[in-house]
Amino acid sequence: MGSAGFLLAVTLLISHAFAESIIQISPHRKTRVDDGLYCDSWRFSVETNNAGVWYSIPSRCIPFVEDYMNGDRYLSDSQVVSSYGLDFANTVNVSSDGKDAWVFDIDETLLSNLPYYDAHGFGSEIFDEDSFDEWVDLAEAPALPASLKLYNELKQLGFKIFLLTGRSEFQRNVTGKNLLFSGYSGWEKLILRGPQDQGKLAVVYKSEKRQELVNEGYRIHGSSGDQWSDLQGFAVAERSFKLPNPMYFIA
Amino acid sequence: MGSAGFLLAVTLLISHAFAESIIQISPHRKTRVDDGLYCDSWRFSVETNNAGVWYSIPSRCIPFVEDYMNGDRYLSDSQVVSSYGLDFANTVNVSSDGKDAWVFDIDETLLSNLPYYDAHGFGSEIFDEDSFDEWVDLAEAPALPASLKLYNELKQLGFKIFLLTGRSEFQRNVTGKNLLFSGYSGWEKLILRGPQDQGKLAVVYKSEKRQELVNEGYRIHGSSGDQWSDLQGFAVAERSFKLPNPMYFIA
Repeated sequence: MGSAGFLLAVTLLISHAFAESIIQISPHRKTRVDDGLYCDSWRFSVETNNAGVWYSIPSRCIPFVEDYMNGDRYLSDSQVVSSYGLDFANTVNVSSDGKDAWVFDIDETLLSNLPYYDAHGFGSEIFDEDSFDEWVDLAEAPALPASLKLYNELKQLGFKIFLLTGRSEFQRNVTGKNLLFSGYSGWEKLILRGPQDQGKLAVVYKSEKRQELVNEGYRIHGSSGDQWSDLQGFAVAERSFKLPNPMYFIA
Repeated sequence: MGSAGFLLAVTLLISHAFAESIIQISPHRKTRVDDGLYCDSWRFSVETNNAGVWYSIPSRCIPFVEDYMNGDRYLSDSQVVSSYGLDFANTVNVSSDGKDAWVFDIDETLLSNLPYYDAHGFGSEIFDEDSFDEWVDLAEAPALPASLKLYNELKQLGFKIFLLTGRSEFQRNVTGKNLLFSGYSGWEKLILRGPQDQGKLAVVYKSEKRQELVNEGYRIHGSSGDQWSDLQGFAVAERSFKLPNPMYFIA
């Protein structure tokens, strides 16, 4: 087949696939297209931050998100992200000055709130602060296994670990208790939203807190979080590691 | 079941899944774990920019990437990204001053080089500039359907369209010819690497070129690209749209 023929074949193939299944896919209308295909693509756009601000998962994707979160994929995705984090950490020359830092978010990063979201529609319900705070008060969120492993390995390598969470100061005790209960220990500092941080966008609050660390002389090599607002803004880490979270979005 | 019992069940479930299938997954060793599961997680890390610099796809993922690229998923993922782009574009108040801009990358964004990569191992071979340039010279790359649709809709909305590519000036003619051949027309400017841009990281070169547009008074509302280096750096667009590309990485 000449190159023009080859091209034609490819074009027809693409046109065919497009006409058959893709052109009907839209977040705005009901279609007959396979929900699994659409929802996996929705997840791609959510995880790559293409989707912008969003408030709840599409209702047609509830079964997809449930399967993803409760099956092997969520654990596997998290595990590979952590592996890349550890690969990078191993390239860092950790100094004896104690200023080599790694920043972890908490919810859906160190701790999994899957038991809560399992009982609340996997992100299909609008976030309810009261019921979520009640869950937080139980201090029973399990560790995300891949993150616990990375956390312990980073400690071993000599990194100072900072926990930077959108949770508020009034949740300091239960948060520390939950972290210890689920296997975490030895963090340098647990940073929560104080009165002056209320109402700030997460990306601003977290950037400001990282900036304070930088001002104290810390070198933030790595940062792990499930939200882009954990990782972007200013005073960003040398390398950022985006964990999966198809359940909710925080700006 | 009380909350402690519930937690135990969840913990056991997570531990079980972890022990069964996840703990053996590592980019560094051969495992018996399902390649499909691993490769999908590898793709997650690549698309979210967790993987850092990489030079070729893992050999165990060649069949996965082939299926992904030639099946419905690549088209569907691209289509949903474009939908989010159009949703955003529709919120922009396009002015009559002709300064509302959208920046598109070309390769794997407007044009698909899938016929080339199909014949070259889907990113498993180290990039060969000579053979790729020969492919470019054919000017036969098909349009990525979702991007062509978005492109035309943006033109209709009144956006000025800038094409910002890592291709070099000597490829200007074939690039323009290929774009027209595959259905694109009416761009404001096609920007290629000049002599002074050779050897620059893509993220630097592209930021500098966007900065020039900003200096000329353009408001860069949106930017579409398959590489993070198309979208990050400085003079970034108000919203960026990351298209899928599990075949190669450009810094």
